[in-house]
Amino acid sequence: MDTDSPAGRARGPYAKSAERRRQIVDEAYRMFSTRGYQASSLREIAGAAGISLSNLQHHFASKEELLLAVLERRDETPAAETAAADTAENADENAAVPFDAAMVARAAANERIPGLIALYSVLSAEGVTDGHPGREFFLRRYDSLRAGYTAEFEEVRRQGRLRSGVDPAMAAASVVALWEGIQLQWLYAPDRIHAADALRAYLDLVIVSADDEGADA
Amino acid sequence: MDTDSPAGRARGPYAKSAERRRQIVDEAYRMFSTRGYQASSLREIAGAAGISLSNLQHHFASKEELLLAVLERRDETPAAETAAADTAENADENAAVPFDAAMVARAAANERIPGLIALYSVLSAEGVTDGHPGREFFLRRYDSLRAGYTAEFEEVRRQGRLRSGVDPAMAAASVVALWEGIQLQWLYAPDRIHAADALRAYLDLVIVSADDEGADA
Repeated sequence: MDTDSPAGRARGPYAKSAERRRQIVDEAYRMFSTRGYQASSLREIAGAAGISLSNLQHHFASKEELLLAVLERRDETPAAETAAADTAENADENAAVPFDAAMVARAAANERIPGLIALYSVLSAEGVTDGHPGREFFLRRYDSLRAGYTAEFEEVRRQGRLRSGVDPAMAAASVVALWEGIQLQWLYAPDRIHAADALRAYLDLVIVSADDEGADA
Repeated sequence: MDTDSPAGRARGPYAKSAERRRQIVDEAYRMFSTRGYQASSLREIAGAAGISLSNLQHHFASKEELLLAVLERRDETPAAETAAADTAENADENAAVPFDAAMVARAAANERIPGLIALYSVLSAEGVTDGHPGREFFLRRYDSLRAGYTAEFEEVRRQGRLRSGVDPAMAAASVVALWEGIQLQWLYAPDRIHAADALRAYLDLVIVSADDEGADA
Protein backbone atom coordinates (compact mmCIF):
# COMPACT_ATOMS: atom_id res chain seq x y z
CA MET A 1 0.00 0.00 0.00
CA ASP A 2 2.76 2.29 -0.90
CA THR A 3 0.61 5.11 -2.27
CA ASP A 4 -1.16 5.35 1.09
CA SER A 5 1.97 6.21 2.98
CA PRO A 6 2.65 9.91 3.59
CA ALA A 7 5.66 10.15 1.34
CA GLY A 8 4.67 7.21 -0.81
CA ARG A 9 3.37 8.88 -3.91
CA ALA A 10 6.35 11.00 -4.89
CA ARG A 11 9.37 9.06 -3.71
CA GLY A 12 7.99 5.63 -2.85
CA PRO A 13 10.23 3.41 -4.96
CA TYR A 14 13.38 5.31 -4.07
CA ALA A 15 12.57 5.42 -0.38
CA LYS A 16 11.77 1.71 -0.42
CA SER A 17 15.05 0.90 -2.10
CA ALA A 18 17.03 3.06 0.32
CA GLU A 19 15.30 1.43 3.26
CA ARG A 20 15.96 -2.03 1.89
CA ARG A 21 19.65 -1.18 1.45
CA ARG A 22 19.78 0.10 5.02
CA GLN A 23 18.18 -3.07 6.27
CA ILE A 24 20.67 -5.25 4.38
CA VAL A 25 23.60 -3.23 5.73
CA ASP A 26 22.15 -3.60 9.26
CA GLU A 27 22.08 -7.38 8.95
CA ALA A 28 25.53 -7.54 7.35
CA TYR A 29 26.88 -5.34 10.15
CA ARG A 30 25.41 -7.70 12.75
CA MET A 31 26.74 -10.82 11.04
CA PHE A 32 30.24 -9.45 10.34
CA SER A 33 30.44 -8.28 13.99
CA THR A 34 29.51 -11.60 15.46
CA ARG A 35 31.33 -14.01 13.17
CA GLY A 36 33.68 -12.00 10.97
CA TYR A 37 33.58 -11.22 7.29
CA GLN A 38 35.10 -14.39 5.86
CA ALA A 39 32.65 -16.72 7.56
CA SER A 40 29.53 -14.74 6.59
CA SER A 41 27.71 -15.47 3.34
CA LEU A 42 25.46 -13.28 1.22
CA ARG A 43 22.86 -16.04 1.36
CA GLU A 44 22.73 -15.94 5.17
CA ILE A 45 22.61 -12.16 5.23
CA ALA A 46 19.70 -12.23 2.78
CA GLY A 47 17.98 -14.81 4.98
CA ALA A 48 18.45 -12.64 8.08
CA ALA A 49 17.02 -9.65 6.19
CA GLY A 50 14.06 -11.76 5.09
CA ILE A 51 14.72 -11.35 1.37
CA SER A 52 15.98 -13.60 -1.39
CA LEU A 53 19.62 -13.81 -2.40
CA SER A 54 18.84 -12.38 -5.82
CA ASN A 55 17.00 -9.46 -4.25
CA LEU A 56 20.04 -8.76 -2.07
CA GLN A 57 22.31 -8.98 -5.11
CA HIS A 58 20.13 -6.41 -6.83
CA HIS A 59 21.33 -3.97 -4.14
CA PHE A 60 24.87 -5.30 -3.54
CA ALA A 61 26.51 -7.19 -6.37
CA SER A 62 29.18 -8.76 -4.16
CA LYS A 63 30.11 -9.38 -0.54
CA GLU A 64 33.03 -6.94 -1.01
CA GLU A 65 30.61 -4.17 -1.97
CA LEU A 66 28.52 -4.91 1.10
CA LEU A 67 31.60 -4.84 3.33
CA LEU A 68 32.53 -1.37 2.12
CA ALA A 69 28.97 -0.18 2.76
CA VAL A 70 29.24 -1.51 6.33
CA LEU A 71 32.61 0.15 6.88
CA GLU A 72 31.36 3.46 5.55
CA ARG A 73 28.15 3.22 7.52
CA ARG A 74 29.52 5.02 10.55
CA ASP A 75 29.85 8.14 8.44
CA GLU A 76 26.08 8.26 8.27
CA THR A 77 25.51 7.72 11.98
CA PRO A 78 25.62 10.42 14.66
CA ALA A 79 29.03 11.28 16.04
CA ALA A 80 28.36 9.59 19.36
CA GLU A 81 27.80 6.30 17.59
CA THR A 82 30.81 6.35 15.35
CA ALA A 83 33.21 6.09 18.15
CA ALA A 84 35.04 2.93 17.13
CA ALA A 85 36.94 4.95 14.91
CA ASP A 86 38.23 8.10 13.91
CA THR A 87 38.37 10.76 16.20
CA ALA A 88 41.09 12.58 14.40
CA GLU A 89 38.95 13.33 11.39
CA ASN A 90 36.17 14.74 13.54
CA ALA A 91 38.46 16.41 16.01
CA ASP A 92 37.52 19.97 15.27
CA GLU A 93 33.80 19.28 15.40
CA ASN A 94 33.99 20.57 18.90
CA ALA A 95 37.04 22.76 19.07
CA ALA A 96 36.31 23.83 22.66
CA VAL A 97 37.23 20.36 23.93
CA PRO A 98 40.98 19.56 23.83
CA PHE A 99 41.69 16.57 21.62
CA ASP A 100 42.94 14.41 24.46
CA ALA A 101 39.77 14.95 26.50
CA ALA A 102 37.69 14.27 23.37
CA MET A 103 39.59 11.04 22.78
CA VAL A 104 39.02 9.81 26.32
CA ALA A 105 35.33 10.74 26.14
CA ARG A 106 34.99 8.83 22.91
CA ALA A 107 36.70 5.78 24.38
CA ALA A 108 34.24 5.86 27.28
CA ALA A 109 31.31 6.19 24.84
CA ASN A 110 32.61 3.17 22.92
CA GLU A 111 31.72 0.97 25.88
CA ARG A 112 28.11 1.33 24.79
CA ILE A 113 28.78 -0.08 21.33
CA PRO A 114 30.74 -3.33 21.78
CA GLY A 115 29.34 -4.67 18.50
CA LEU A 116 30.93 -1.92 16.45
CA ILE A 117 34.21 -2.26 18.34
CA ALA A 118 34.21 -6.01 17.70
CA LEU A 119 33.45 -5.37 14.03
CA TYR A 120 36.46 -3.08 13.66
CA SER A 121 38.71 -5.41 15.64
CA VAL A 122 37.82 -8.44 13.56
CA LEU A 123 37.88 -6.65 10.20
CA SER A 124 41.13 -4.74 10.80
CA ALA A 125 42.87 -8.02 11.67
CA GLU A 126 41.19 -9.94 8.84
CA GLY A 127 42.25 -7.11 6.54
CA VAL A 128 45.87 -8.30 6.59
CA THR A 129 44.93 -11.75 5.25
CA ASP A 130 45.48 -12.50 1.56
CA GLY A 131 43.19 -10.67 -0.85
CA HIS A 132 40.90 -9.27 1.83
CA PRO A 133 38.74 -6.49 0.37
CA GLY A 134 39.04 -4.41 3.55
CA ARG A 135 42.82 -4.06 3.23
CA GLU A 136 42.82 -0.70 1.43
CA PHE A 137 40.20 0.73 3.76
CA PHE A 138 42.27 -0.04 6.86
CA LEU A 139 45.55 1.01 5.26
CA ARG A 140 44.04 4.43 4.52
CA ARG A 141 42.34 4.55 7.90
CA TYR A 142 45.59 4.01 9.82
CA ASP A 143 47.38 6.58 7.67
CA SER A 144 44.64 9.11 8.29
CA LEU A 145 44.47 8.44 12.05
CA ARG A 146 48.25 8.72 12.45
CA ALA A 147 48.37 11.92 10.41
CA GLY A 148 45.54 13.49 12.40
CA TYR A 149 47.01 12.66 15.81
CA THR A 150 50.52 13.63 14.74
CA ALA A 151 49.16 17.10 13.97
CA GLU A 152 47.45 17.18 17.39
CA PHE A 153 50.62 16.22 19.26
CA GLU A 154 52.60 18.79 17.24
CA GLU A 155 50.13 21.43 18.38
CA VAL A 156 50.56 20.24 21.97
CA ARG A 157 54.31 20.64 21.53
CA ARG A 158 53.84 24.19 20.18
CA GLN A 159 51.91 24.92 23.37
CA GLY A 160 54.90 23.67 25.37
CA ARG A 161 52.93 20.77 26.81
CA LEU A 162 54.58 17.75 25.15
CA ARG A 163 56.91 15.84 27.44
CA SER A 164 60.54 16.28 26.53
CA GLY A 165 61.79 13.56 24.19
CA VAL A 166 58.34 12.53 22.93
CA ASP A 167 58.06 12.36 19.14
CA PRO A 168 54.61 13.45 17.87
CA ALA A 169 54.47 10.83 15.09
CA MET A 170 55.49 8.05 17.48
CA ALA A 171 52.93 9.21 20.05
CA ALA A 172 50.25 9.24 17.33
CA ALA A 173 50.97 5.67 16.17
CA SER A 174 51.21 4.56 19.79
CA VAL A 175 47.94 6.06 20.96
CA VAL A 176 46.08 4.45 18.04
CA ALA A 177 47.77 1.12 18.82
CA LEU A 178 47.05 1.36 22.53
CA TRP A 179 43.42 2.27 21.90
CA GLU A 180 42.78 -0.65 19.57
CA GLY A 181 44.73 -3.10 21.68
CA ILE A 182 43.05 -2.14 24.94
CA GLN A 183 39.61 -2.30 23.30
CA LEU A 184 40.33 -5.88 22.27
CA GLN A 185 41.26 -6.76 25.86
CA TRP A 186 38.07 -5.02 26.98
CA LEU A 187 35.98 -7.18 24.61
CA TYR A 188 37.39 -10.23 26.43
CA ALA A 189 37.10 -8.80 29.96
CA PRO A 190 34.63 -5.87 29.97
CA ASP A 191 34.34 -5.97 33.75
CA ARG A 192 38.07 -5.53 34.32
CA ILE A 193 39.47 -3.45 31.45
CA HIS A 194 38.56 0.17 30.80
CA ALA A 195 39.87 1.65 27.59
CA ALA A 196 39.21 5.25 28.61
CA ASP A 197 41.35 4.88 31.75
CA ALA A 198 44.24 3.39 29.79
CA LEU A 199 44.10 6.18 27.21
CA ARG A 200 43.97 8.82 29.95
CA ALA A 201 46.99 7.26 31.68
CA TYR A 202 48.96 7.28 28.42
CA LEU A 203 48.01 10.86 27.56
CA ASP A 204 49.00 11.96 31.07
CA LEU A 205 52.45 10.50 30.40
CA VAL A 206 53.02 12.43 27.18
CA ILE A 207 51.09 15.66 27.83
CA VAL A 208 52.33 17.70 30.77
CA SER A 209 51.36 21.10 32.07
CA ALA A 210 52.93 24.03 30.21
CA ASP A 211 55.19 25.05 33.08
CA ASP A 212 56.35 21.48 33.80
CA GLU A 213 60.10 21.16 33.50
CA GLY A 214 59.60 17.90 31.60
CA ALA A 215 58.06 19.66 28.61
CA ASP A 216 59.80 20.74 25.44
CA ALA A 217 59.64 24.46 24.87
CA MET B 1 60.47 -48.45 2.81
CA ASP B 2 59.95 -47.73 6.42
CA THR B 3 62.01 -50.59 7.77
CA ASP B 4 65.03 -49.28 5.87
CA SER B 5 65.09 -45.98 7.69
CA PRO B 6 67.49 -45.68 10.64
CA ALA B 7 64.84 -45.48 13.28
CA GLY B 8 62.18 -47.19 11.24
CA ARG B 9 62.03 -50.59 12.77
CA ALA B 10 61.41 -49.70 16.37
CA ARG B 11 59.34 -46.52 16.25
CA GLY B 12 58.31 -46.24 12.63
CA PRO B 13 54.54 -45.98 13.00
CA TYR B 14 54.73 -43.57 15.89
CA ALA B 15 57.33 -41.36 14.19
CA LYS B 16 55.28 -41.36 11.00
CA SER B 17 52.17 -40.35 12.86
CA ALA B 18 53.97 -37.56 14.72
CA GLU B 19 55.45 -36.28 11.50
CA ARG B 20 52.06 -36.37 9.79
CA ARG B 21 50.53 -34.40 12.67
CA ARG B 22 53.30 -31.84 12.45
CA GLN B 23 52.76 -31.50 8.72
CA ILE B 24 49.00 -30.97 9.19
CA VAL B 25 49.62 -28.35 11.88
CA ASP B 26 52.10 -26.61 9.52
CA GLU B 27 49.47 -26.34 6.79
CA ALA B 28 46.75 -25.25 9.20
CA TYR B 29 49.08 -22.61 10.61
CA ARG B 30 49.74 -21.29 7.10
CA MET B 31 46.08 -21.26 6.15
CA PHE B 32 44.82 -19.69 9.41
CA SER B 33 47.54 -17.02 9.09
CA THR B 34 46.67 -16.05 5.56
CA ARG B 35 42.89 -16.23 5.63
CA GLY B 36 41.79 -16.62 9.22
CA TYR B 37 40.24 -19.52 11.06
CA GLN B 38 36.61 -19.16 10.08
CA ALA B 39 37.26 -19.16 6.35
CA SER B 40 39.59 -22.20 6.42
CA SER B 41 38.19 -25.69 6.00
CA LEU B 42 39.56 -29.06 7.09
CA ARG B 43 39.14 -30.27 3.51
CA GLU B 44 41.41 -27.52 2.16
CA ILE B 45 44.00 -28.08 4.87
CA ALA B 46 44.01 -31.80 4.04
CA GLY B 47 44.44 -30.90 0.36
CA ALA B 48 47.37 -28.61 1.15
CA ALA B 49 48.98 -31.36 3.21
CA GLY B 50 48.46 -33.83 0.35
CA ILE B 51 46.30 -36.21 2.35
CA SER B 52 42.62 -37.14 2.39
CA LEU B 53 40.09 -35.48 4.65
CA SER B 54 39.48 -38.75 6.48
CA ASN B 55 43.20 -39.20 7.03
CA LEU B 56 43.36 -35.69 8.52
CA GLN B 57 40.37 -36.44 10.72
CA HIS B 58 42.16 -39.52 12.00
CA HIS B 59 44.68 -37.08 13.55
CA PHE B 60 42.38 -34.15 14.36
CA ALA B 61 38.71 -34.89 14.90
CA SER B 62 37.61 -31.28 14.46
CA LYS B 63 38.78 -27.89 13.24
CA GLU B 64 38.66 -26.68 16.87
CA GLU B 65 41.13 -29.37 17.90
CA LEU B 66 43.43 -28.34 15.08
CA LEU B 67 43.19 -24.68 16.09
CA LEU B 68 44.30 -25.48 19.61
CA ALA B 69 47.24 -27.49 18.24
CA VAL B 70 48.24 -24.46 16.13
CA LEU B 71 47.95 -22.09 19.08
CA GLU B 72 50.00 -24.38 21.31
CA ARG B 73 52.56 -24.98 18.61
CA ARG B 74 54.78 -22.09 19.65
CA ASP B 75 55.46 -23.91 22.91
CA GLU B 76 57.32 -26.53 20.91
CA THR B 77 59.38 -24.07 18.89
CA PRO B 78 62.60 -22.38 20.01
CA ALA B 79 62.23 -19.26 22.11
CA ALA B 80 63.34 -16.96 19.31
CA GLU B 81 60.47 -18.20 17.16
CA THR B 82 57.74 -17.90 19.70
CA ALA B 83 57.99 -14.20 19.84
CA ALA B 84 54.44 -13.29 18.93
CA ALA B 85 53.59 -14.14 22.28
CA ASP B 86 54.39 -14.44 25.71
CA THR B 87 57.39 -13.02 26.98
CA ALA B 88 56.13 -12.78 30.46
CA GLU B 89 55.99 -16.52 30.93
CA ASN B 90 59.54 -16.95 29.66
CA ALA B 91 60.86 -13.84 31.30
CA ASP B 92 63.26 -15.50 33.65
CA GLU B 93 64.78 -17.71 30.98
CA ASN B 94 67.48 -15.12 30.79
CA ALA B 95 67.45 -13.29 34.06
CA ALA B 96 70.51 -11.22 33.16
CA VAL B 97 68.49 -9.20 30.62
CA PRO B 98 66.02 -6.71 32.19
CA PHE B 99 62.45 -7.48 31.18
CA ASP B 100 62.02 -4.24 29.24
CA ALA B 101 65.12 -4.88 27.12
CA ALA B 102 63.97 -8.47 26.57
CA MET B 103 60.55 -7.21 25.47
CA VAL B 104 62.02 -4.79 22.94
CA ALA B 105 64.40 -7.46 21.61
CA ARG B 106 61.49 -9.81 21.16
CA ALA B 107 59.46 -7.18 19.32
CA ALA B 108 62.41 -6.66 16.96
CA ALA B 109 62.71 -10.42 16.43
CA ASN B 110 58.99 -10.57 15.61
CA GLU B 111 59.68 -8.65 12.41
CA ARG B 112 61.10 -11.88 11.01
CA ILE B 113 57.88 -13.82 11.60
CA PRO B 114 55.04 -11.76 10.12
CA GLY B 115 53.01 -14.94 9.52
CA LEU B 116 52.86 -15.79 13.20
CA ILE B 117 52.05 -12.20 14.12
CA ALA B 118 49.24 -12.15 11.58
CA LEU B 119 47.96 -15.46 12.94
CA TYR B 120 47.74 -14.08 16.47
CA SER B 121 46.20 -10.80 15.30
CA VAL B 122 43.49 -12.51 13.29
CA LEU B 123 42.75 -15.21 15.85
CA SER B 124 42.69 -12.92 18.89
CA ALA B 125 40.15 -10.67 17.14
CA GLU B 126 38.14 -13.60 15.76
CA GLY B 127 38.17 -15.01 19.29
CA VAL B 128 35.59 -12.46 20.43
CA THR B 129 33.05 -13.58 17.82
CA ASP B 130 30.21 -15.86 18.89
CA GLY B 131 31.18 -19.40 19.81
CA HIS B 132 34.78 -19.09 18.60
CA PRO B 133 36.85 -21.97 19.97
CA GLY B 134 39.87 -19.71 20.53
CA ARG B 135 38.03 -17.55 23.06
CA GLU B 136 39.18 -19.36 26.19
CA PHE B 137 42.76 -19.52 24.94
CA PHE B 138 42.97 -15.75 24.42
CA LEU B 139 41.10 -14.95 27.62
CA ARG B 140 43.68 -16.97 29.58
CA ARG B 141 46.53 -15.58 27.49
CA TYR B 142 45.62 -11.95 28.25
CA ASP B 143 45.18 -12.73 31.94
CA SER B 144 48.56 -14.42 32.03
CA LEU B 145 50.34 -11.64 30.10
CA ARG B 146 48.85 -8.91 32.30
CA ALA B 147 49.72 -10.80 35.48
CA GLY B 148 53.30 -11.39 34.32
CA TYR B 149 53.95 -7.78 33.33
CA THR B 150 52.22 -6.41 36.41
CA ALA B 151 54.73 -8.36 38.50
CA GLU B 152 57.57 -6.94 36.38
CA PHE B 153 56.40 -3.34 36.79
CA GLU B 154 55.94 -3.91 40.53
CA GLU B 155 59.54 -5.05 40.69
CA VAL B 156 60.59 -1.92 38.75
CA ARG B 157 58.72 0.14 41.35
CA ARG B 158 60.50 -1.65 44.20
CA GLN B 159 63.74 -0.65 42.52
CA GLY B 160 62.57 2.97 42.57
CA ARG B 161 62.49 3.16 38.77
CA LEU B 162 58.74 3.43 38.06
CA ARG B 163 57.61 6.92 37.13
CA SER B 164 55.57 8.55 39.84
CA GLY B 165 51.83 8.01 39.35
CA VAL B 166 52.17 4.96 37.09
CA ASP B 167 50.06 1.97 38.15
CA PRO B 168 51.81 -1.37 37.49
CA ALA B 169 48.59 -3.16 36.45
CA MET B 170 47.62 -0.33 34.10
CA ALA B 171 51.11 -0.25 32.59
CA ALA B 172 50.94 -4.04 32.08
CA ALA B 173 47.59 -3.94 30.25
CA SER B 174 48.79 -0.92 28.26
CA VAL B 175 52.08 -2.40 27.12
CA VAL B 176 50.32 -5.57 25.93
CA ALA B 177 47.72 -3.43 24.11
CA LEU B 178 50.35 -1.16 22.57
CA TRP B 179 52.40 -4.13 21.44
CA GLU B 180 49.50 -5.87 19.72
CA GLY B 181 48.11 -2.69 18.23
CA ILE B 182 51.42 -1.50 16.82
CA GLN B 183 52.12 -4.96 15.38
CA LEU B 184 48.84 -4.75 13.49
CA GLN B 185 49.81 -1.36 12.07
CA TRP B 186 53.20 -2.85 11.15
CA LEU B 187 51.50 -5.67 9.23
CA TYR B 188 49.82 -2.99 7.09
CA ALA B 189 52.90 -0.75 6.73
CA PRO B 190 56.05 -2.77 7.51
CA ASP B 191 58.27 -0.13 5.92
CA ARG B 192 57.01 2.67 8.15
CA ILE B 193 56.04 1.16 11.49
CA HIS B 194 58.49 -0.43 13.92
CA ALA B 195 56.99 -2.15 16.90
CA ALA B 196 60.25 -2.32 18.84
CA ASP B 197 60.71 1.47 18.65
CA ALA B 198 57.18 2.10 19.87
CA LEU B 199 57.61 -0.29 22.79
CA ARG B 200 60.95 1.29 23.70
CA ALA B 201 59.39 4.77 23.62
CA TYR B 202 56.56 3.64 25.92
CA LEU B 203 58.90 1.88 28.34
CA ASP B 204 61.09 5.00 28.47
CA LEU B 205 58.03 6.95 29.57
CA VAL B 206 57.20 4.66 32.48
CA ILE B 207 60.64 3.44 33.57
CA VAL B 208 63.01 6.14 34.74
CA SER B 209 66.45 5.99 36.29
CA ALA B 210 66.52 5.24 40.00
CA ASP B 211 67.65 8.70 41.02
CA ASP B 212 65.14 10.50 38.77
CA GLU B 213 62.87 12.76 40.75
CA GLY B 214 59.93 11.44 38.68
CA ALA B 215 60.19 7.98 40.21
CA ASP B 216 58.22 6.62 43.14
CA ALA B 217 60.42 5.54 45.99
